[in-house]
Amino acid sequence: MKLGLIGLGKMGMNLALNMHDNGHTAVGMDLNPDNLQRAAQQGIATATDLADLVAQLPSPRVIWIMVPAGKATDSVISQLADSLSAGDIVLDGGNSHYQDSIRHGEQLGAQHINFLDVGTSGGQAGARHNGNFMIGGDPATFKVVEPLFQAIAAPDGYLYTGPVGSGHYLKMVHNGIEYGMMAAIGEGFDVLQHSQFTYDNAAVAKMWNNGSVIRSWLMELAQDAFSKDGNLDDIKGVMHSSGEGRWTLDTALDQQVATPVIAMALMMRYRSTTDDTFTGKVVAALRNEFGGHAVDHE
Amino acid sequence: MKLGLIGLGKMGMNLALNMHDNGHTAVGMDLNPDNLQRAAQQGIATATDLADLVAQLPSPRVIWIMVPAGKATDSVISQLADSLSAGDIVLDGGNSHYQDSIRHGEQLGAQHINFLDVGTSGGQAGARHNGNFMIGGDPATFKVVEPLFQAIAAPDGYLYTGPVGSGHYLKMVHNGIEYGMMAAIGEGFDVLQHSQFTYDNAAVAKMWNNGSVIRSWLMELAQDAFSKDGNLDDIKGVMHSSGEGRWTLDTALDQQVATPVIAMALMMRYRSTTDDTFTGKVVAALRNEFGGHAVDHE
Repeated sequence: MKLGLIGLGKMGMNLALNMHDNGHTAVGMDLNPDNLQRAAQQGIATATDLADLVAQLPSPRVIWIMVPAGKATDSVISQLADSLSAGDIVLDGGNSHYQDSIRHGEQLGAQHINFLDVGTSGGQAGARHNGNFMIGGDPATFKVVEPLFQAIAAPDGYLYTGPVGSGHYLKMVHNGIEYGMMAAIGEGFDVLQHSQFTYDNAAVAKMWNNGSVIRSWLMELAQDAFSKDGNLDDIKGVMHSSGEGRWTLDTALDQQVATPVIAMALMMRYRSTTDDTFTGKVVAALRNEFGGHAVDHE
Repeated sequence: MKLGLIGLGKMGMNLALNMHDNGHTAVGMDLNPDNLQRAAQQGIATATDLADLVAQLPSPRVIWIMVPAGKATDSVISQLADSLSAGDIVLDGGNSHYQDSIRHGEQLGAQHINFLDVGTSGGQAGARHNGNFMIGGDPATFKVVEPLFQAIAAPDGYLYTGPVGSGHYLKMVHNGIEYGMMAAIGEGFDVLQHSQFTYDNAAVAKMWNNGSVIRSWLMELAQDAFSKDGNLDDIKGVMHSSGEGRWTLDTALDQQVATPVIAMALMMRYRSTTDDTFTGKVVAALRNEFGGHAVDHE
């Protein structure tokens, strides 16, 4: 299959190489000329702009979007709605909010352009080899592009999940689970780090990855990180986030479903991004007011 | 190596068979005659009581304890302190609290009996094949029994962790991490179950286990459970616990280390074991008092 791939960042570039290795041809497009040049150097066909990309593709055209969620994806979808023809197929492999994907499906559907929302997991390594994909949309459209997923996914590593939105919804929940699992792993190693014993974190993670109940890809990544920097002395404990954990919590609140572990994992990420909190100032002030307890000063 | 194995429950029986398959001979002992008979039927040598067990073992004797933590383990340790000789080796493979293990080490040490505390992970499947072990105690004693671990553990699936207590401390933290990971997985599937889409939970877990970031043995167990009962209609959401999560939180509180995800996972287990809470009655009563809001009645 020859398809267009808009967005040649870390994920897009690895996907293009994965497709290339597995019998499919991605024609890459990116607003950043450095990314375009890097793709060309690695043997990926490129297009200079959207009109060029559309012109290079056979009909029905298949275009995979791999750009940041939100405004960037909105913009690409709008341009594609204007540039493509009835019967063409657009896949959004980024981390869009599932409600945005439902809107994108309607927007493209008004032009009779088919849309699939594709949750993509496995990190950069998965994009390059044996990826993991959750695909929502019209089932007949899915069947047209299924050979692509058979080629680039891990065996059994893709799933058709139902109507438009269901792929990104599932990816959102995947990331919510990921937040909780990562926080549990982090907290556990914190209790080890403060213990009366001295553990070799890399050796612990390696042993746990060989037969324990908590063996997991995340623990393998912990093993890799500890093997480079045994006590992570070079890394600050600031936990940034890019939205999906928040969306999982928003969705749980809409459902009135209790997800306190995912909520706490998210809140602790926010807490980690600031050195001090107003909560802390208020509590310290109140302790001082009622009990004369000491406060720390700026 | 010929060793004694006290406790032929699910874990002990599987360990005995694992040892047998891998060139070591466990002589089994259990207070329950049914367990003894079942072991004999599976080709495991047995002893009728502790004196018989001690008499059957070459010197220095090696005895592995695999009985419930707490009083049962305390009792066996005390009997072994009276029955064994200087230079013999006792391993506690159960889920003892690490502070109990430090005490057991001192108790046996007073009789010049060597003690190793062995955190055991991997469930019943791991006890049977490719187990996972965290071993604390005197390093020279560890070296004597290391061939046993080489035989029954997964490759790279055992670790010498330091002084007595460090093995069970590490296993405690392992279980704390497990609580958090399991809660995150559970909450995620809850958000799926309440969504506007209809997911095949078994298919989702299977797809996630093939290439996603959250692939893990726990997700494989979820896949197995969902493949038997797609929406777990036959299972109540009551989450029992056996201590290690609580101990992890106790230890974190002693250290004044924040582990809110593990704490929340533990609290939600407690919440699940009761149909109603006094907290709920108080909050409902207060809403009624200040705002006349409706309360539900018994």
